Amino acid sequence: MEFDEVVRRRRMVRTYDPDRPVPAEIRDKLLAHALRAPSAGFSQGWGFLVLEKPEDRELFWTATTADDPDDGPDGWLTRMRTAPLIIVPMSNKSVYLDRYAQSDKGWTDRDESRWPVPYWDIDTGFAALLVHLTAVDAGLGSCFIGLPADRVEHFKVAFGVPEAFTPIGALTVGYRAPDKRSPSLRRGHRPMDEVVHHGRWTG
Amino acid sequence: MEFDEVVRRRRMVRTYDPDRPVPAEIRDKLLAHALRAPSAGFSQGWGFLVLEKPEDRELFWTATTADDPDDGPDGWLTRMRTAPLIIVPMSNKSVYLDRYAQSDKGWTDRDESRWPVPYWDIDTGFAALLVHLTAVDAGLGSCFIGLPADRVEHFKVAFGVPEAFTPIGALTVGYRAPDKRSPSLRRGHRPMDEVVHHGRWTG
Repeated sequence: MEFDEVVRRRRMVRTYDPDRPVPAEIRDKLLAHALRAPSAGFSQGWGFLVLEKPEDRELFWTATTADDPDDGPDGWLTRMRTAPLIIVPMSNKSVYLDRYAQSDKGWTDRDESRWPVPYWDIDTGFAALLVHLTAVDAGLGSCFIGLPADRVEHFKVAFGVPEAFTPIGALTVGYRAPDKRSPSLRRGHRPMDEVVHHGRWTG
Repeated sequence: MEFDEVVRRRRMVRTYDPDRPVPAEIRDKLLAHALRAPSAGFSQGWGFLVLEKPEDRELFWTATTADDPDDGPDGWLTRMRTAPLIIVPMSNKSVYLDRYAQSDKGWTDRDESRWPVPYWDIDTGFAALLVHLTAVDAGLGSCFIGLPADRVEHFKVAFGVPEAFTPIGALTVGYRAPDKRSPSLRRGHRPMDEVVHHGRWTG
């Protein structure tokens, strides 16, 4: 698919055809593209948990979501559970602190205050967006969701994730089924001249 | 260009043809695609500073970089200054805290501890990656760089950026000139089986 069309078609898909698994070659391409994401100092301080078996996916949802009385049989989280593939991208800050203490980078310590923003999370986000776009390119749908802060530890214990890794969210992937439009979209796009500033900040 | 080819060709470009500006229609497309990035709750808590005039670009480099004795006439930062266009993506945490205190999201306060990772930075990173990929698609090159933590305030004052916004880095954009390969690439890609885990964390 043309790049422009991928950008144009991209949207968060929350309902999937539960009877149509993601072919292995597409799954592998999603992951191969994730690993092509850029990273500061080529640190690649990330890890990806891939869940396909029904019992693994069930464990994911149990570990990461609390019972939500507002999420009825047709609620978004219930619909998300139809996704045949879940990929959890995780960042590893420690790898970045180590990388930038190496001689070619010149910092002599692992001081976190050198980092104005957490590039471990941003870079892992780059990888997540590449998975999301690659799914669109392959004719599938995908959604990137955050995990509730108070369920992160449950998730890590359930899947044996080492202390150093932090899930930055999760991607559901699958063939699209008739979906509901997110109510958030009613907010509309912020207009270009509100968010883009030429030369100096204005407005 | 096909999406796959954009992903394959993508690399950080650090040397540009200084005599070839970025056409206005390509610049506008880079920004339009940035604004199509996904964001939590459709918050769109971001802003983009666009620098094209030589004096604005000079101010950017002066404000954000210290004199580096290791960066000689052929150093990477000197080469980066050949870029005819700089886009600085900035995140606004406050917009996210406000958004999730609204009634349809159900959180009743702006407590930051609800956020396991900073989605304001990750979402703004999504926008930055879309700019980077769109440049490749348009036949140009681009580089995403971090700003040194101790220069962020200089930068914000120089360009009149409000307190609430934080630059997550900067993108240089332009037509490619013969470049040098980043030494970091000698580290090589981490192998797939080191970073991808099926069903449970392994290794």
